[in-house]
Amino acid sequence: MDNNLFFSKAKKFLLLKEIFLLCKSEITEHPKKKIFGINSLKNSKLNDISFFDNLNYLKDAQSTKASACIVNEKCQKYLNKNTIPIISKNPLVDFYKIVSLFYPEANNDNEQINFIDFNKIKKFFNKSIFIGNNCLIDKTVKIGDNSKVGNNVLIKRGVSIGKNCLIGSNVVIENSLVGDNVIIKSGTLIGQTGFGFKFENKKRVKFPHIGRVIIENDVQIGTLCTLDRGSLSDTVIGEFSSLDNQVHIAHNVKIGNYCMIAGQVGIAGSTTIGNYVQIGGQSGVSGHLNIGNNVKIGGKSGVISDIEDNSTVMGYPAKNIKEFVKTR
Amino acid sequence: MDNNLFFSKAKKFLLLKEIFLLCKSEITEHPKKKIFGINSLKNSKLNDISFFDNLNYLKDAQSTKASACIVNEKCQKYLNKNTIPIISKNPLVDFYKIVSLFYPEANNDNEQINFIDFNKIKKFFNKSIFIGNNCLIDKTVKIGDNSKVGNNVLIKRGVSIGKNCLIGSNVVIENSLVGDNVIIKSGTLIGQTGFGFKFENKKRVKFPHIGRVIIENDVQIGTLCTLDRGSLSDTVIGEFSSLDNQVHIAHNVKIGNYCMIAGQVGIAGSTTIGNYVQIGGQSGVSGHLNIGNNVKIGGKSGVISDIEDNSTVMGYPAKNIKEFVKTR
Amino acid sequence: MDNNLFFSKAKKFLLLKEIFLLCKSEITEHPKKKIFGINSLKNSKLNDISFFDNLNYLKDAQSTKASACIVNEKCQKYLNKNTIPIISKNPLVDFYKIVSLFYPEANNDNEQINFIDFNKIKKFFNKSIFIGNNCLIDKTVKIGDNSKVGNNVLIKRGVSIGKNCLIGSNVVIENSLVGDNVIIKSGTLIGQTGFGFKFENKKRVKFPHIGRVIIENDVQIGTLCTLDRGSLSDTVIGEFSSLDNQVHIAHNVKIGNYCMIAGQVGIAGSTTIGNYVQIGGQSGVSGHLNIGNNVKIGGKSGVISDIEDNSTVMGYPAKNIKEFVKTR
Repeated sequence: MDNNLFFSKAKKFLLLKEIFLLCKSEITEHPKKKIFGINSLKNSKLNDISFFDNLNYLKDAQSTKASACIVNEKCQKYLNKNTIPIISKNPLVDFYKIVSLFYPEANNDNEQINFIDFNKIKKFFNKSIFIGNNCLIDKTVKIGDNSKVGNNVLIKRGVSIGKNCLIGSNVVIENSLVGDNVIIKSGTLIGQTGFGFKFENKKRVKFPHIGRVIIENDVQIGTLCTLDRGSLSDTVIGEFSSLDNQVHIAHNVKIGNYCMIAGQVGIAGSTTIGNYVQIGGQSGVSGHLNIGNNVKIGGKSGVISDIEDNSTVMGYPAKNIKEFVKTR
Repeated sequence: MDNNLFFSKAKKFLLLKEIFLLCKSEITEHPKKKIFGINSLKNSKLNDISFFDNLNYLKDAQSTKASACIVNEKCQKYLNKNTIPIISKNPLVDFYKIVSLFYPEANNDNEQINFIDFNKIKKFFNKSIFIGNNCLIDKTVKIGDNSKVGNNVLIKRGVSIGKNCLIGSNVVIENSLVGDNVIIKSGTLIGQTGFGFKFENKKRVKFPHIGRVIIENDVQIGTLCTLDRGSLSDTVIGEFSSLDNQVHIAHNVKIGNYCMIAGQVGIAGSTTIGNYVQIGGQSGVSGHLNIGNNVKIGGKSGVISDIEDNSTVMGYPAKNIKEFVKTR
Repeated sequence: MDNNLFFSKAKKFLLLKEIFLLCKSEITEHPKKKIFGINSLKNSKLNDISFFDNLNYLKDAQSTKASACIVNEKCQKYLNKNTIPIISKNPLVDFYKIVSLFYPEANNDNEQINFIDFNKIKKFFNKSIFIGNNCLIDKTVKIGDNSKVGNNVLIKRGVSIGKNCLIGSNVVIENSLVGDNVIIKSGTLIGQTGFGFKFENKKRVKFPHIGRVIIENDVQIGTLCTLDRGSLSDTVIGEFSSLDNQVHIAHNVKIGNYCMIAGQVGIAGSTTIGNYVQIGGQSGVSGHLNIGNNVKIGGKSGVISDIEDNSTVMGYPAKNIKEFVKTR
């Protein structure tokens, strides 16, 4: 992931011995080998490091191209023989720590950027751009022609906003790429780190966040919404999708195109939602689910399992609408 | 509706031929006739235009005083003979477009108003008014005696605030009339355009919003609430009604007097709520419903049908409290 | 409660005759006696005033050390003979009024404090403190070493923030004590007055709020949360507890240590939650409940009764998870 703009302090590489040390693991081989990236077992390239602690990922572990892998004792024997194992009691937590070593800015939202007064450098922009009062916009930010930004808006390092966008007032955008013709209404926060951590010796080890929020063309987002940036992958809102007010989208959620999501809906982390999906007000969708295309979810539903294409569901837990009507 | 203060760019009239053109309809008669307003079939006056696409409104269509009406082929024959029909495949969408032609500001929240520093013109105000730091208040705004406004507050064109009001910090108010003794707590957004649109050839046609938010005397509104402005009519909060934190009130909702609405409640568009209604936390009420007087709605209920006066309901879907207790 | 920093206008004492007058009660004895504090029957000390209108508190009434007590006619005969009774038709409402007489600032959020530009007095602080742009921070505020504060942040009179804290942007903090290593993310509002009032002759008598929000060490709070200050006691978030986005915590809620509260959860007033409690997204917990230690509450649950230690519940109303699975 090319996140240079979002991570000015990212390291180019780690030495394998640093990783062994962090995992409190005996240094077995190649201490001076350079590790250049972090990734999943499946997506790792040569010189990447990954982690493996769950036999559900057996096949990925056998075929991974990662040069090193943090692994627990149980899983070690299944790992690709070309991958250097780094034994850990808690591979996931140690992997989080490695990510944070690579990206020191991955753990916390950074308010410390040197903002500039965008209005004073208007000469750099097409005159059709409007920027309201008291805005704090980083000098690396890009804003397309004919876009309008309201008042008291914060836009942080590396954010890109397309053409013809309307950004309301009191909006905060960070770690995000925003397409053309996008509307983001007042009070909405986009791109903050998400929720999640593990405890180790009663200390919190936070999920690292190096993903972005990708808002595609023609998306509309209501007031007082929160869209968390991705953890290891991106959070995505597909083109022509619309969110009403007070919607919460957690990290790594992917929403397809032409979806309509009504007020006060919450989508938990890593759930994928297809195209043309309609979600009624106050509904919630659990994490790590797959919701198909053309799905309709009635208001105030609680979705706790995958939903097939073209289904209409309602209830808590959500079931087929006909069943819901029968048993209500 | 006298919205001059909110719509500085509104047109005085449209020519009938402009409307025929927009509807891609053959110009049948009176191309130079002037249309001065838009309205429902029922409320239209002479020289207004309306729309008719649903036989539920048959009686209104027969007795309407509108001078012109956008109508589909199915409904055309039932229209009052004095009303000029303009044939459209999709009367509602075309009506939306006409409204937007009349009111170019009806589709999007406008951040582009020239704010003034209210503190610098304090001489125009009674000294008892307090305005906090970093406020952006339009010069057309009226604020009554003894009212206090917090910090970082935005109040836009045409808004009127009564006497003895307390407005918190980080509040945004637009397109709204606020009575006396009103409390609006920090972080709340009032008067933004609501949610809703139709798709036409995969392009979004947004509901126009020309209604206001009317907040009557002695209303209290909590922190981080969102109250959308009305679409064609107003959104209304009746006197002595109180909203807790994180409540969402959609466009055109009418709430009566002395209502108590607890935290995280959502009321969907065009629903009417009587007087002395109590709604428990996290409840949701669907759109276009009528909730009677003295109704009590238990916490986390999902109301999907009308409720009679003096009822107590709970559940999802909400039912009589006795039934709820029996079947839980 | 030592609230001097939060209540600059608090009175040192009231004369008993002022209290008789307010309760419209005949002055029976000791009109010039000074009352120095308000409290519950149980916690009152000599020279405090309390109220008694419910026989559930019979024992407390008999053993109270309060010097005076607002009481209705039904309860009067059970009151400790050493306590001066002040007869009232509505003891709770009159007690509220007494609290407001003591603390004129107890009824409404005060935006009127004279903020100073913290950045201009950085010399008073350890250089390791970072304060963003456009912050409004009262001169009585304390901020510990290595803490960072984002942009557009308001911190009001008397607030204390510990070491190594990260405060996001657009945050408002008032009437609160914040420990070390605390993260408060952008857009969150902490310490406002809560929701609640009685009506008397169709006029609102608001619950007074003289409690604080106590945020213990290592707490994390997400974006767009609302944490109301306590009414007569404090609102407390215990150490290492974490709140996701859009969570609402009402007045007087006590949350233990190491709790995890997911997005869009609401906890109603005066509920107590133990240690190591996990609450799934969009769940709601009614007011005045006791939730034990190690309790797990599934997503979107509606909790309307106490929960024992080590239970796992889900549903609306929430029941044992096994029952929920059976009946869904």
